[in-house]
Amino acid sequence: MTTPTCIALPKIRFERGFLAERARLVRDVVIPYQWEALNDRLPGAERSGTVHNFQVAAGEKQGKFYGLWFQDSDLAKWLEAASFRLATHPDPKLDAELDAIIATIAKAQQPDGYLDTYVQLTAPDKKWTNLFEWHELYIAGHFIEAGVAHFEATGKRTLLDVVGKLADMIERVFGPDEGQILGYPGHEEVELALVKLARVTGEKRYVRLAAYFINQRGATPNYYEAESQRLGVKKLPVYFYHNRWAYLQANKPVREELEPIGHSVRAMYLYTAMADLALELGDESLRAACHTLWSNLTNYHTYVTGAIGSEWNGEQFSGRYDLPNDRAYAESCAGIGLVFFARRMLDLELRGEFADAMERTLFNNVLAGMALDGKTFFYVNPLEVRPDEAKRRYDQHFVKTERVPWFGCACCPPNIARTLASLGHYTHSVTADGLAVHLYTDCSLEATVAGTKLKFALQTDYPWDGRVRMEINPAAPTEFALRLRLPGWCMAPTAAINGTPVDLAAHRGNGYLHLVRAWSAGDVVTLDFPMTVQRIRAHPRVVHDVGCVALQRGPLVFCVEQVDNGDQLGLLRLPKTAALTGRFESGLLGGTIVLEGVAERLQPANPDLYSAAEPTVVPAKIKAVPYCLWNNRGEGEMRVWIHES
Amino acid sequence: MTTPTCIALPKIRFERGFLAERARLVRDVVIPYQWEALNDRLPGAERSGTVHNFQVAAGEKQGKFYGLWFQDSDLAKWLEAASFRLATHPDPKLDAELDAIIATIAKAQQPDGYLDTYVQLTAPDKKWTNLFEWHELYIAGHFIEAGVAHFEATGKRTLLDVVGKLADMIERVFGPDEGQILGYPGHEEVELALVKLARVTGEKRYVRLAAYFINQRGATPNYYEAESQRLGVKKLPVYFYHNRWAYLQANKPVREELEPIGHSVRAMYLYTAMADLALELGDESLRAACHTLWSNLTNYHTYVTGAIGSEWNGEQFSGRYDLPNDRAYAESCAGIGLVFFARRMLDLELRGEFADAMERTLFNNVLAGMALDGKTFFYVNPLEVRPDEAKRRYDQHFVKTERVPWFGCACCPPNIARTLASLGHYTHSVTADGLAVHLYTDCSLEATVAGTKLKFALQTDYPWDGRVRMEINPAAPTEFALRLRLPGWCMAPTAAINGTPVDLAAHRGNGYLHLVRAWSAGDVVTLDFPMTVQRIRAHPRVVHDVGCVALQRGPLVFCVEQVDNGDQLGLLRLPKTAALTGRFESGLLGGTIVLEGVAERLQPANPDLYSAAEPTVVPAKIKAVPYCLWNNRGEGEMRVWIHES
Repeated sequence: MTTPTCIALPKIRFERGFLAERARLVRDVVIPYQWEALNDRLPGAERSGTVHNFQVAAGEKQGKFYGLWFQDSDLAKWLEAASFRLATHPDPKLDAELDAIIATIAKAQQPDGYLDTYVQLTAPDKKWTNLFEWHELYIAGHFIEAGVAHFEATGKRTLLDVVGKLADMIERVFGPDEGQILGYPGHEEVELALVKLARVTGEKRYVRLAAYFINQRGATPNYYEAESQRLGVKKLPVYFYHNRWAYLQANKPVREELEPIGHSVRAMYLYTAMADLALELGDESLRAACHTLWSNLTNYHTYVTGAIGSEWNGEQFSGRYDLPNDRAYAESCAGIGLVFFARRMLDLELRGEFADAMERTLFNNVLAGMALDGKTFFYVNPLEVRPDEAKRRYDQHFVKTERVPWFGCACCPPNIARTLASLGHYTHSVTADGLAVHLYTDCSLEATVAGTKLKFALQTDYPWDGRVRMEINPAAPTEFALRLRLPGWCMAPTAAINGTPVDLAAHRGNGYLHLVRAWSAGDVVTLDFPMTVQRIRAHPRVVHDVGCVALQRGPLVFCVEQVDNGDQLGLLRLPKTAALTGRFESGLLGGTIVLEGVAERLQPANPDLYSAAEPTVVPAKIKAVPYCLWNNRGEGEMRVWIHES
Repeated sequence: MTTPTCIALPKIRFERGFLAERARLVRDVVIPYQWEALNDRLPGAERSGTVHNFQVAAGEKQGKFYGLWFQDSDLAKWLEAASFRLATHPDPKLDAELDAIIATIAKAQQPDGYLDTYVQLTAPDKKWTNLFEWHELYIAGHFIEAGVAHFEATGKRTLLDVVGKLADMIERVFGPDEGQILGYPGHEEVELALVKLARVTGEKRYVRLAAYFINQRGATPNYYEAESQRLGVKKLPVYFYHNRWAYLQANKPVREELEPIGHSVRAMYLYTAMADLALELGDESLRAACHTLWSNLTNYHTYVTGAIGSEWNGEQFSGRYDLPNDRAYAESCAGIGLVFFARRMLDLELRGEFADAMERTLFNNVLAGMALDGKTFFYVNPLEVRPDEAKRRYDQHFVKTERVPWFGCACCPPNIARTLASLGHYTHSVTADGLAVHLYTDCSLEATVAGTKLKFALQTDYPWDGRVRMEINPAAPTEFALRLRLPGWCMAPTAAINGTPVDLAAHRGNGYLHLVRAWSAGDVVTLDFPMTVQRIRAHPRVVHDVGCVALQRGPLVFCVEQVDNGDQLGLLRLPKTAALTGRFESGLLGGTIVLEGVAERLQPANPDLYSAAEPTVVPAKIKAVPYCLWNNRGEGEMRVWIHES
């Protein structure tokens, strides 16, 4: 399981509502679809080669390695997603498919535990020699996560044994002892996976191995300096050009580099593991570093959609407040990484800001990564797109103006799938003394709280409506804490227990409502988070957003699209006084709230490119849709930040 | 000479004022300095190798070719600039230096006339085989221009003979006949040079050769398709990715591609030659194409500084209205090319818009290319620079945050030098029936107008002050037309002849004041172009400038710099009602007008990255300096477009 407080997936059901529909899509469409992609059976999509590579490595077929050096990880992430699906929705056919591919993987694994088809098939004598570029440990991490998920879903040890053997080999190979490699992963991931493996197996040594990797990272002398010299690397790739190993978060020890830096997905996986280890080891310096990193991440480096990583070159963080909208990289996987990090921070300390950020990123950045039909994906999620410009300008060449079925580097689609397939890991925490609700979405769950079996049902039309009804059914009347997140976006929440209003001021703390009492079967807690249309302003240091507002309603950030508002969205201007109202449009985009009002549209005073004359304005209807639903109606302009007058 | 109406350089003197000082700098500092650079004697600058290459090709020393395939052109442009200098300021030492290097060039030239040290030294069997990438014809063009300038300055035929032999070879090699190459230059330049050569030699066949190149360009079947197949080019460089040969303006015949497209310097040199040929041949279809190209260039593709080319990748034009400020390429050479094109358009038709654009680009974009001390240069001229961001972001990696002494690709410094050294070619036109003044700057000139010798003196403190006094001294009273440009930026010009106000409405047309009368010695014409501080707005389709104003006073566009206004210039906001006044500050930047007033500075309402609160404002003094003088006081932020409230 993701963290010690997670609810086991079979114990929580999502049957209706916005997120449940996305989770269903992942189960019914995305996972089968991606299996076709991994098997190169998807017409019109880029070739994957992933399953092929394992079959070749297993000796089941002849052929050469195809794809990128981290291609294996696509299969691992899919295996994890498919396992999550089996956990909640048993399916003999999928179960058998997993058994078959796991058997192939086991055959592909070398007797000593090594597993990486890229190295095995292209450079078998070069194992562990190129940690800064190759992804052996990253891939190992994803397989370990898959092995844990498969075991938890099915009780079968087939994949868990494979990854245990792999982890054991890593433990033998890496470390400070004579004959061991004093290195660590170029792409972090195995650290958080080892913590999961330790949790499911009870083997603390895997935590120690993860801690070794974390503590060794960025130590002096720098491992990568020596490695790149040994490899004869004359010039590092161009994305290393700021401070070399900072790209890998290895310029300094992790407790000293407190600014999000370098490749954003790597950074998130590192911080996630740091939070895991702070919890597992009670490491206060690591905990403090996590808090500072969190604070810097969310105060200086996050888009209003919760996306991170604003520089294409190296898919990395830029400087503080440097958040251009049309050149945003804002990778779906980086957003997923932020969700992971936030979830661990909630175990370190129950603070609403962690869940607020998790919600913002999940509902906006991550969901935008997948089309409404589950068949096409965005890797990059800019906040402003002008298709002609994006196709023409090299500095936007990474922006896709429509979602695509698959990528040569297909990290994002299976990452989205595995995250939505394990939604229950993010929505709640169960601790010895209570239940916490982080994300509001219609669900029912069972848990053991304060020694008592609890059935808990939550009904809501969130994110369209902020009213939430929870029914609490302990097997016997029991005192425990019900901790309910008070969303940061909501100015005036209210709550009631069995119809009696709760004095919020007396019970709120750190962004949660703490209801500690003896709960009895049939108790009902209602919450109301009124959803008004909010105009969000960026800190004025975000130079690209000066004079603009983003529209938000509840957790959803909205955008204007060309299909609703005509082209040239930069000409739209929203008067400060213009009223905007939300309206549910059931026939649109699977049913969505739209925001509507009367804005104005700039008109040139004359045809001159430059003149002293001010542009004039004409009234213009404006219609905004949730950002996560954009680009489901064909190619067109889109804009989150709207000029305000 | 540049065009048939140009005043010969020895006949016009610039002794005082803003442009004269820049011209003096070029004569006294830049030309000797660049000679050191071309000879690799400049400490701290990138190696040039240019003179070295000719010495090796001439057999004067041993060695290998150094530098880029168009390195020769740096010498040619310098030779042209140095010749211009000799024309106005005879100098035996420089004269002797030119004789010596010209002798080396003559030795380097092959007996058949071929001259290109890159090909001669690295691929002597591959002449004329790679027109799309190599620059043989481009280099030939620059040498032809230098040869013409050298002959006009000194009366010596040494270099003119070399380039005549080269042009004759080109005439033999290229053309539609059996055994000739049906190609044309990958980088236009030779066409305009051949017209100059025809004008100085009287050989019309050079005009015909230029016309062949222009008419063949983009013809079907496309020469470059065949050439690149022959060369086995699998994939064109990435900057060809829009419509392949459009990068070279060779996707269509020149009369059909009426949108500025592709590499912006190439485009300007092409359009310049098209205008030359329209005049030489009376070609109406070419003239019409030039007018449409001009109109599209200035209505859709020009920065407020007169710079062009907004896409780094391929140094090319982007789409209409796509003029980002921080990622502007805005190459100095492209601005120079626009000046060339504008000057030719003035010979096709005397319209103020051509001179307005020439003035805008020269005073702002081109002058910004050179430091006040003449020793460092900008290749790229963005309108907004945040140094930290420019150093960090790959999509701004081409932006230099300070001028540099020399470039590996050093096209711009000598191009700026040759343009300013031939200033007199741009300021006036002399036709059979009169004299036209395009650019106002203090000068005195002699010309023959309507058969009479005319002495003409112009006194002004332009661009600081819009008052102009002209003394007209014909050898005998003579009727001719004095045509005086009425700058497009001036809303209320006035004029007087010998103190008597001129009825402007009766005498203005096409942006000029046309004064046709019998002029006598001692006649004085005065003009007044009141210089107020103007707030310029961009057409709202320029999405990056929405809500912003640029400040202009007279022909100068201003900018705010960090050294005067603190950092975070994006936080400055100029209320619509704020008064701005110009003040001459003699101790600043060699003496300059500064614009001052009270603006406001945005302050975050709270430290949050996003919040519903509006930022607050505090009053903030604002001080703007001419854009062309920016970055003469160390590295810092700069911004032309300022938020307006």
